[in-house]
Amino acid sequence: MYVILVYDIVVDDEGKKILPKVFKCCKKYLSHIQNSVFEGDMTPSQMMALRMELQKWIRKDKDSLIVFSSRDQKWLQKEFWGKEEDRTSRFL
Amino acid sequence: MYVILVYDIVVDDEGKKILPKVFKCCKKYLSHIQNSVFEGDMTPSQMMALRMELQKWIRKDKDSLIVFSSRDQKWLQKEFWGKEEDRTSRFL
Repeated sequence: MYVILVYDIVVDDEGKKILPKVFKCCKKYLSHIQNSVFEGDMTPSQMMALRMELQKWIRKDKDSLIVFSSRDQKWLQKEFWGKEEDRTSRFL
Repeated sequence: MYVILVYDIVVDDEGKKILPKVFKCCKKYLSHIQNSVFEGDMTPSQMMALRMELQKWIRKDKDSLIVFSSRDQKWLQKEFWGKEEDRTSRFL
């Protein structure tokens, strides 16, 4: 399934340490397309694995992490209204 | 059509002024669901109007604004892996 993941980690002292961990978890399964936005194809089991990994870091009382998913990428159009996709960031 | 809009404005001196303008444009048509993420239903003409308004502010060389759209919300699942949706933020 095709996934868009957006997060917003509260940058307090703990949050500063959490941020790179969350980034790394997401980067393992998805492509980084904007500051705190990832997208990509995942199987349901990969999605479950990512969720488990993120649960170690995300604080349910303050951090937001929203996952939009569509069965197929074809149901989803993507447009860039600002600068175009930076393809090099996919290899960070 | 159902839309997810994510932006990342570079916060330099100009960006600081742009940020509230972009927020206000998006808020006019969509619901604010996370720091720089909006979602909602829009007609193609509303989408065109929003794009025109945002073009006044978004700097094509540095700011990123990505719009995902699906013909129908039913093709898109939404899950909260962090804190639950803050419904009050819809009325900001």
